[in-house]
Amino acid sequence: MRTLALVVEYDGSGYSGFARQAEARSIAAELETALETLLGHPVRLVAAGRTDAGVHATGQVVSFTTGSDFPMKRLPIAVSALLRERGIAVVRAVTRAAGFSARFDALARTYRYKILNRAAPSPLERLRVFHVGARLDVESMREAAEALSGTHDFVALSAADPAAEKTVRTISHIAVERAGDLVLLDVTADSFLHHMVRVLTGTLVEVGRQRRSAGSIQALLASRRREQAGFTAPPHGLYLTHVSYAEPL
Amino acid sequence: MRTLALVVEYDGSGYSGFARQAEARSIAAELETALETLLGHPVRLVAAGRTDAGVHATGQVVSFTTGSDFPMKRLPIAVSALLRERGIAVVRAVTRAAGFSARFDALARTYRYKILNRAAPSPLERLRVFHVGARLDVESMREAAEALSGTHDFVALSAADPAAEKTVRTISHIAVERAGDLVLLDVTADSFLHHMVRVLTGTLVEVGRQRRSAGSIQALLASRRREQAGFTAPPHGLYLTHVSYAEPL
Repeated sequence: MRTLALVVEYDGSGYSGFARQAEARSIAAELETALETLLGHPVRLVAAGRTDAGVHATGQVVSFTTGSDFPMKRLPIAVSALLRERGIAVVRAVTRAAGFSARFDALARTYRYKILNRAAPSPLERLRVFHVGARLDVESMREAAEALSGTHDFVALSAADPAAEKTVRTISHIAVERAGDLVLLDVTADSFLHHMVRVLTGTLVEVGRQRRSAGSIQALLASRRREQAGFTAPPHGLYLTHVSYAEPL
Repeated sequence: MRTLALVVEYDGSGYSGFARQAEARSIAAELETALETLLGHPVRLVAAGRTDAGVHATGQVVSFTTGSDFPMKRLPIAVSALLRERGIAVVRAVTRAAGFSARFDALARTYRYKILNRAAPSPLERLRVFHVGARLDVESMREAAEALSGTHDFVALSAADPAAEKTVRTISHIAVERAGDLVLLDVTADSFLHHMVRVLTGTLVEVGRQRRSAGSIQALLASRRREQAGFTAPPHGLYLTHVSYAEPL
């Protein structure tokens, strides 16, 4: 038996999310079906991040075990060919030590949120970016982002249920930059609460539109109240871009 | 009467091209219909470039005249809203002197060709890039591109009919660069022959795969024979990115 890790890219549009759900199209179900076709045995994937409906990935990581002698060098191309019309591709396949889990061995996840910040929408980037027509003050957004860096209780900036889970997380890196018409938010944390990147983005957009101050972030975190934070930015601007492990993939 | 110039972005997928054609979906017909709805009179557009089926644009320019008092500041947002589901947006609208023609006053056109150069395809960039799995030698491609710079008879690198048109053009700028997994070709000329950027790209890809030498370009141009050049790269990697005028838009 071998344990494999796959780096996966997908277009989340039209999917109910990564995780398998009865009666809905999921990335996991498509990938598992393709792998089962190639390997000839049932496959159940473990994923580093459970992306929501409409959320994309360029660096999702999944793991599974197989006894198949399918040539692993061919696996990315073969899976990608099977899923060509489904908007899913395997970018890389790597063998890991027995017991490796894409989820539990992940040290940190990085997400990118892409905002198109110009008056006109972009037909070429529809369902790839969140369009904000009003000019964003990136300097203020950066100042607010800095206040989010480090270890905090992020319950105010999430859809988490504090009665059911721990809500303290550590953001090890957060950056906001303008790149042409885009404003890009990159954020790395040990893990994320449900909707955390999207609520964080919505809140930073309100700062960028000068509807709330960069200095108000500390009080917002301390309030622990979701209704104090900004709107939930739409899923189609969000990408799971990287998952890091002790041994890089 | 006012003469207006519009900068237009579109996703060329599913269209027969820019130019109006009977019985086929064209960008021109969609745009003209939307403008007629807003302005209340027939509109016939003049365009800087007649992009082929599947070719995209981020900087197409069109011109037309109108007697309407529709507030021009609202025009980009209003047209873009009407065409939201059609993959077309107006990025900017500018008033020009009477007699201005987006086509005949254009000094130069710039196209970008995007190649995804990695083993795996990209679901997020499907129909946005041309996927070449084998590693390209960008240094050789750059050397070949330099040989194309300047004034030449480009008939060998086109689908032009030399009996019907002049086939000498001037490439004022051409650059090939690697940007992450992408190889980007940017080329500016006074104007282009039919399929010229795509044949030029196909030929440079063959150089990058070491199937022809960078030094062979001069002889290829001199041959004036299409069958001596490379394949025609697919339309979905091609973008009309900029049109320049004496007075910038």
